[in-house]
Amino acid sequence: DFERALNDIEPKFGAKSQELKAYYRNGFVPYGDTFDNLMSTLERLVEQVRSSDKTPLMSILLQGSASSGKTAIAAKLAVESGFPFVRMISADEMIGYSDVSKSTQIHKVFMDSYRSPLSLIFLDDIERLIEYVPIGPRFSNAVLQTLMILLKKIPADEGRKLLIIGTTSAGHLLEDLGLVQAFSVAQTVPLIAEGKDFYEVLRSAAHMSKEDAKAIARQIKKPIGIKQLLMVAEMAKQSSDDGSVNVNVFMECLHAAGY
Amino acid sequence: DFERALNDIEPKFGAKSQELKAYYRNGFVPYGDTFDNLMSTLERLVEQVRSSDKTPLMSILLQGSASSGKTAIAAKLAVESGFPFVRMISADEMIGYSDVSKSTQIHKVFMDSYRSPLSLIFLDDIERLIEYVPIGPRFSNAVLQTLMILLKKIPADEGRKLLIIGTTSAGHLLEDLGLVQAFSVAQTVPLIAEGKDFYEVLRSAAHMSKEDAKAIARQIKKPIGIKQLLMVAEMAKQSSDDGSVNVNVFMECLHAAGY
Amino acid sequence: DFERALNDIEPKFGAKSQELKAYYRNGFVPYGDTFDNLMSTLERLVEQVRSSDKTPLMSILLQGSASSGKTAIAAKLAVESGFPFVRMISADEMIGYSDVSKSTQIHKVFMDSYRSPLSLIFLDDIERLIEYVPIGPRFSNAVLQTLMILLKKIPADEGRKLLIIGTTSAGHLLEDLGLVQAFSVAQTVPLIAEGKDFYEVLRSAAHMSKEDAKAIARQIKKPIGIKQLLMVAEMAKQSSDDGSVNVNVFMECLHAAGY
Amino acid sequence: DFERALNDIEPKFGAKSQELKAYYRNGFVPYGDTFDNLMSTLERLVEQVRSSDKTPLMSILLQGSASSGKTAIAAKLAVESGFPFVRMISADEMIGYSDVSKSTQIHKVFMDSYRSPLSLIFLDDIERLIEYVPIGPRFSNAVLQTLMILLKKIPADEGRKLLIIGTTSAGHLLEDLGLVQAFSVAQTVPLIAEGKDFYEVLRSAAHMSKEDAKAIARQIKKPIGIKQLLMVAEMAKQSSDDGSVNVNVFMECLHAAGY
Amino acid sequence: DFERALNDIEPKFGAKSQELKAYYRNGFVPYGDTFDNLMSTLERLVEQVRSSDKTPLMSILLQGSASSGKTAIAAKLAVESGFPFVRMISADEMIGYSDVSKSTQIHKVFMDSYRSPLSLIFLDDIERLIEYVPIGPRFSNAVLQTLMILLKKIPADEGRKLLIIGTTSAGHLLEDLGLVQAFSVAQTVPLIAEGKDFYEVLRSAAHMSKEDAKAIARQIKKPIGIKQLLMVAEMAKQSSDDGSVNVNVFMECLHAAGY
Amino acid sequence: DFERALNDIEPKFGAKSQELKAYYRNGFVPYGDTFDNLMSTLERLVEQVRSSDKTPLMSILLQGSASSGKTAIAAKLAVESGFPFVRMISADEMIGYSDVSKSTQIHKVFMDSYRSPLSLIFLDDIERLIEYVPIGPRFSNAVLQTLMILLKKIPADEGRKLLIIGTTSAGHLLEDLGLVQAFSVAQTVPLIAEGKDFYEVLRSAAHMSKEDAKAIARQIKKPIGIKQLLMVAEMAKQSSDDGSVNVNVFMECLHAAGY
Ligand SMILES: Nc1ncnc2c1ncn2[C@@H]1O[C@H](COP(=O)(O)OP(=O)(O)OP(=O)(O)O)[C@@H](O)[C@H]1O
Ligand SMILES: Nc1ncnc2c1ncn2[C@@H]1O[C@H](COP(=O)(O)OP(=O)(O)OP(=O)(O)O)[C@@H](O)[C@H]1O
Ligand SMILES: Nc1ncnc2c1ncn2[C@@H]1O[C@H](COP(=O)(O)OP(=O)(O)OP(=O)(O)O)[C@@H](O)[C@H]1O
Ligand SMILES: Nc1ncnc2c1ncn2[C@@H]1O[C@H](COP(=O)(O)OP(=O)(O)OP(=O)(O)O)[C@@H](O)[C@H]1O
Ligand SMILES: Nc1ncnc2c1ncn2[C@@H]1O[C@H](COP(=O)(O)OP(=O)(O)OP(=O)(O)O)[C@@H](O)[C@H]1O
Ligand SMILES: Nc1ncnc2c1ncn2[C@@H]1O[C@H](COP(=O)(O)OP(=O)(O)OP(=O)(O)O)[C@@H](O)[C@H]1O
Ligand SMILES: [Mg+2]
Ligand SMILES: [Mg+2]
Ligand SMILES: [Mg+2]
Ligand SMILES: [Mg+2]
Ligand SMILES: [Mg+2]
Ligand SMILES: [Mg+2]
Repeated sequence: DFERALNDIEPKFGAKSQELKAYYRNGFVPYGDTFDNLMSTLERLVEQVRSSDKTPLMSILLQGSASSGKTAIAAKLAVESGFPFVRMISADEMIGYSDVSKSTQIHKVFMDSYRSPLSLIFLDDIERLIEYVPIGPRFSNAVLQTLMILLKKIPADEGRKLLIIGTTSAGHLLEDLGLVQAFSVAQTVPLIAEGKDFYEVLRSAAHMSKEDAKAIARQIKKPIGIKQLLMVAEMAKQSSDDGSVNVNVFMECLHAAGY
Repeated sequence: DFERALNDIEPKFGAKSQELKAYYRNGFVPYGDTFDNLMSTLERLVEQVRSSDKTPLMSILLQGSASSGKTAIAAKLAVESGFPFVRMISADEMIGYSDVSKSTQIHKVFMDSYRSPLSLIFLDDIERLIEYVPIGPRFSNAVLQTLMILLKKIPADEGRKLLIIGTTSAGHLLEDLGLVQAFSVAQTVPLIAEGKDFYEVLRSAAHMSKEDAKAIARQIKKPIGIKQLLMVAEMAKQSSDDGSVNVNVFMECLHAAGY
Repeated sequence: DFERALNDIEPKFGAKSQELKAYYRNGFVPYGDTFDNLMSTLERLVEQVRSSDKTPLMSILLQGSASSGKTAIAAKLAVESGFPFVRMISADEMIGYSDVSKSTQIHKVFMDSYRSPLSLIFLDDIERLIEYVPIGPRFSNAVLQTLMILLKKIPADEGRKLLIIGTTSAGHLLEDLGLVQAFSVAQTVPLIAEGKDFYEVLRSAAHMSKEDAKAIARQIKKPIGIKQLLMVAEMAKQSSDDGSVNVNVFMECLHAAGY
Repeated sequence: DFERALNDIEPKFGAKSQELKAYYRNGFVPYGDTFDNLMSTLERLVEQVRSSDKTPLMSILLQGSASSGKTAIAAKLAVESGFPFVRMISADEMIGYSDVSKSTQIHKVFMDSYRSPLSLIFLDDIERLIEYVPIGPRFSNAVLQTLMILLKKIPADEGRKLLIIGTTSAGHLLEDLGLVQAFSVAQTVPLIAEGKDFYEVLRSAAHMSKEDAKAIARQIKKPIGIKQLLMVAEMAKQSSDDGSVNVNVFMECLHAAGY
Repeated sequence: DFERALNDIEPKFGAKSQELKAYYRNGFVPYGDTFDNLMSTLERLVEQVRSSDKTPLMSILLQGSASSGKTAIAAKLAVESGFPFVRMISADEMIGYSDVSKSTQIHKVFMDSYRSPLSLIFLDDIERLIEYVPIGPRFSNAVLQTLMILLKKIPADEGRKLLIIGTTSAGHLLEDLGLVQAFSVAQTVPLIAEGKDFYEVLRSAAHMSKEDAKAIARQIKKPIGIKQLLMVAEMAKQSSDDGSVNVNVFMECLHAAGY
Repeated sequence: DFERALNDIEPKFGAKSQELKAYYRNGFVPYGDTFDNLMSTLERLVEQVRSSDKTPLMSILLQGSASSGKTAIAAKLAVESGFPFVRMISADEMIGYSDVSKSTQIHKVFMDSYRSPLSLIFLDDIERLIEYVPIGPRFSNAVLQTLMILLKKIPADEGRKLLIIGTTSAGHLLEDLGLVQAFSVAQTVPLIAEGKDFYEVLRSAAHMSKEDAKAIARQIKKPIGIKQLLMVAEMAKQSSDDGSVNVNVFMECLHAAGY
């Protein structure tokens, strides 16, 4: 009804709920206590937006190192929220857009969200949205200002609620811009650091044998993001025919990937 | 008569008196002596514009930390002034506008105000109006100059009076731009710092029980803005079914919100 | 004749002689020796332009702190000069103009002035004309260059004379730009600093009783500009019904205004 | 079939597989163990993209000093990959293009690649693509952001795979921009440093006699890129009629070329 | 004939020979040995362009403090050269022009000059032409490059000769830009520093009585430019009815003018 | 045939072979061993491009102080090369052009050159082409990037060869931009420093008598560029009627010219 109405008339910008599943298409496994606590806090906040009368607007910033799994987490929360209006705003849909066009485009998604009783907007890779580069630094101030305005704008009509989830690998840099403080809440997505967490991910997500997983988990000394860990595991598998992974080969691939 | 004439012909830009009530829709409670003195000073200044022949122009800057309640205070004064012409200029109505368009838009509101015998213009979040970011810093000089000109321009016709109220969380930064000195008067909106003030707000605005309010008020060590205090209280309520708030849960939520 | 011709054909830009009276509509009282010497020097310079054959071009810069009364003095001189062509160029008539438009507009006023045998051009708030802000600093170089060219351009036709009066609160900053040196003469408009001068202004311009004026004049320790002094006096009057002013109330208002 | 379809409808931008052979038209000889290991690692990564289900996107950055042979290596890999879609993006096809046009052009090549099951995009001389100059530094942030977005964008449709190979002589500078970290893997193309490697290249690629090659190989003390070595050899040949190369002449030419 | 042809077809940009007389309409008196040597060197250079076959292009930069008389000297040389083509390029004829328009305009004057056998182009106040301001510094690089190109471009046709004279008060600043070195020759226009030179100017150009001139000449301790000296003399005359000048009055006016 | 075809269809941009003779119209005399070695090295490089199969692209940068004779040398090489396609790209043919137009124009000349079997492109005064000024520094990055791309682009068709000769007085500054390293070879054009070289130039190029030449050659203590030496000689000749040159007069003129 409401959803159909929106679909009939709105342009096709902004990934919607079903499409977001692709961001964790290779599975979504827990990897440690910090991860569990984080998911649990986030789920509580989503629930608060759904049920509280005093929360017409909430914004959550997921920060963490590159490849730590931020996009997957945000996408999962969005899909599982079940909110009638779910949209993702990401830079790859606005390549070649002028500052003004980007601001207008982003504004439009927010304006559409105000028409739904329960909306979720997912801003992925905020540094890419504002075109941030640490040399200078340079960034689009127009898009930055637009985000800072919309992060604080309470939906005008009574009873409308909006949850905004953002992700960034450059939290400390965005803090200098005043952008982190514009979010109601900030949460850190951790790297994988514990031996048992390495083991878990290599077993469940990389589908390694217990022996391979154990041998490798013992060797990794530095914390690593889940995306990189899985990529290195796949690289290491190429050297054998049967999908098994030799520890030394794994460590070599780890090195080639920059660790 | 005058009001109707204006309404017939003018475009629909700029929130008017009735709409401003939304900015304190969850109530407006006093919280301490500093707050009371502030409100009383401000009310006297509004009255001066209304009754003095020697005051055709006055501008008041409300500065204070983010979330201290500046917008609510300014909106309340505007609504209660009863002036025939009341307009709010805020950045969210000018998203995507070029420098020139913003200057022209702002100028238009002031030009309209000169036609009324008693006008009030509310400039919310001045740093957003001038697109200020502390890195660089970068800002729209065109809009800044427009504001500095209009803050000092006395209505040309005799007997016309204009009161301008501005809010900002970045008073010290705007001072470097020369903007603070352009206002006739500057007043600071305080954070809540005293135990009894925490208690008052938790009781009256957050509708907590006396016990909960007292227990929590004793624990808060750092000053906090009213907006954040109320948000944390709402977050803490989610953990129980009956709206009660456990002190430890409250302190956790306080921490998640950045305190 | 000449005046009528100009009026018939020229656009309506630039406040003319009669309109300038508004800038001292609340009176114009002397306040001390420095003030008297200043007015006397300025009147002599105006006379020189009127009568000397060797003075086709003269420019005077009135500098001084904000609110010291610069605009009122310049406006008074302009009105009292009796020159057939008198125009004021101020930033509020060029809001939203591009650099090029502003330069062209200013150039046009000067070109019109060359057609009159005796012309006076009043440039108010030069920092606003060139859109100056001390952070950066940023300013319109196009308008600055235009002013520097026109400040030195002698009217081409023999017998034409032009007097230019400029005002600024940022003399030291404009000096770095080379703009102060472009004026033939620079004069400083003083703040009110002497007890007897405070008394004089409170009596004559603020219409206080002798007792009130004397009590307050004794208390003011810091120099203040006439505009601010008069504003504070008006603020203080609000607390009583009969226009009298209590000293303590006055000092409070002084403090609220930033002193 | 797929290839024909693409060819029928697509514009003629971007060198394709056959044209890439020109980048090593003068031969492609191995010169040492480091070179062999590098080629072998790169070939394994190309194979991984071809056969792994878990690798829909991989990006490899070839960095090294100017003239070390990066373009030749990347071109060879591209030609030998046999992928149905192979395109080269290089700055010389976008001379005079605006920022927006370049971003749009690059985006278009990537969008075309998503339609093929196995695609390879070769970004040559990344510093030229982003118009980088170390003074300032200055660069096109729009093109930089476009690359950083597309380097991480996984083809939306299941089963599509994309391999991106980039070359740069300014790896350390691009690292400050965050561009190096956007690649999955970075590999260094070495200079020729060993006497036996000099000998090999002078014999096989420069077609020198054993005696000439040996005499010269003994004299070269500093590492040099293969492109420069071959150019100097050709310069030195001019002094004789029979293609032989005198050692002293060679060393002189080496000096003239900047060594 | 040539002159008439040019006049028929060319636009009316650029003051020509007769109009230049206005720049020394109040007389042109020698004031000292340095002045005489300067004029004599300059006249020799003009003659060289007229008669030497080996001098198709020469450029002379007159530098010196503001008000030292540079424009008057250059104008005099231009008028007295008798060259068939004489044009002045000054910023006041290009107010509001874009960078490109200014470059094109200046280029056009040079292109016209190449059609005459003997041409003189006078560039007055080069810092105004390139819109130079020492804060930043900021300037029009497009106009600067145009000047640097044209200062070195030899007229293409054999037998054509061009003399370029430029003036500037900011020689040291223009040197940093590389502009001073683009001139063949640079000469300094001196301030008046000697007592006898002050006397001479006050007598001959300011038409003072011997007594007045002598009394004042004894009092001036700092060097001063001729333009300022003459302006102060005129100011001082206003205080008396008969054109005589009292020493003390003179010193006061000197002080008011910034000395 | 090829030449005629090109001439029929191509626009008339870029000085061609015959026109380049004008750059040494006053003669071209050798002045010392360094000069002879330089000319000999350059002639060998031109020959290499003509006859070697392995040299489809070569670029030579002539750097040296202002007035050292760079343009004359480059022009002479171009004329004497006898290549069927010879073009000069210099800034005076692109005055007022936008960045994009300049890049497009330069690209066009290169594209035309690829159609000839043997081409020579002469880039004079590279700092003027890229609009370089050392304050900032400021320069056109678009033109710089275009040059860096085209300096390395090998003509696509087999058998086509291109020689690029560039001149600059700012080699060290262009080195910071990475432009010097883009050339295959860099050669320095020397100043005249030896007594016997001064004598030679004054005799052969300035046509002085042996006595004059000898007397003057003994006095010059600092190295000087040939262009400046010849200009000073001509200046000194003006003082006499018979073309002879007095030593003292010469030294004075040397001083006036900045030495
Ligand atoms: N909990 C998880 N379990 C299994 N796979 C995961 C999990 N989290 C992430 N991944 C996988 O890792 C990959 C990348 O993760 P993701 O894109 O979320 O990282 P990111 O932090 O957003 O990276 P970036 O900093 O580049 O934006 C995805 O393919 C995703 O499926
Ligand atoms: N005196 C008050 N009593 C009750 N609620 C209040 C009071 N003042 C503010 N609030 C509530 O707090 C919330 C936010 O306050 P407000 O927007 O005025 O803060 P602010 O200082 O303008 O914040 P920001 O710095 O983000 O602009 C509003 O929902 C408002 O209703
Ligand atoms: N001599 C005076 N006597 C009485 N009133 C005066 C006098 N001078 C100024 N005023 C009053 O003070 C007010 C402001 O003065 P004015 O605008 O000239 O100050 P200003 O220095 O130009 O201020 P700003 O720096 O803001 O431009 C005016 O209302 C004017 O009438
Ligand atoms: N392995 C090789 N064997 C023979 N010739 C080679 C080899 N590698 C490169 N060359 C030759 O050297 C020349 C230049 O190499 P290439 O262009 O790859 O260097 P590059 O590192 O990309 O240089 P640049 O830094 O200028 O981009 C080519 O002509 C190429 O044929
Ligand atoms: N030698 C002279 N004798 C008499 N009057 C002179 C002489 N030189 C200059 N003047 C007069 O002084 C005035 C200004 O001189 P001029 O404009 O040449 O100075 P300038 O150095 O160009 O000043 P600026 O730095 O402002 O451009 C003119 O009115 C001119 O007539
Ligand atoms: N070898 C030479 N013999 C005789 N005359 C010469 C010689 N070299 C240069 N000249 C003359 O000197 C003059 C200028 O030389 P040229 O323009 O080549 O110097 P440049 O180094 O290019 O100067 P710039 O740095 O200003 O570009 C020309 O008129 C030229 O004829
Ligand atoms: Mg991500
Ligand atoms: Mg607010
Ligand atoms: Mg004023
Ligand atoms: Mg390469
Ligand atoms: Mg001058
Ligand atoms: Mg040259």
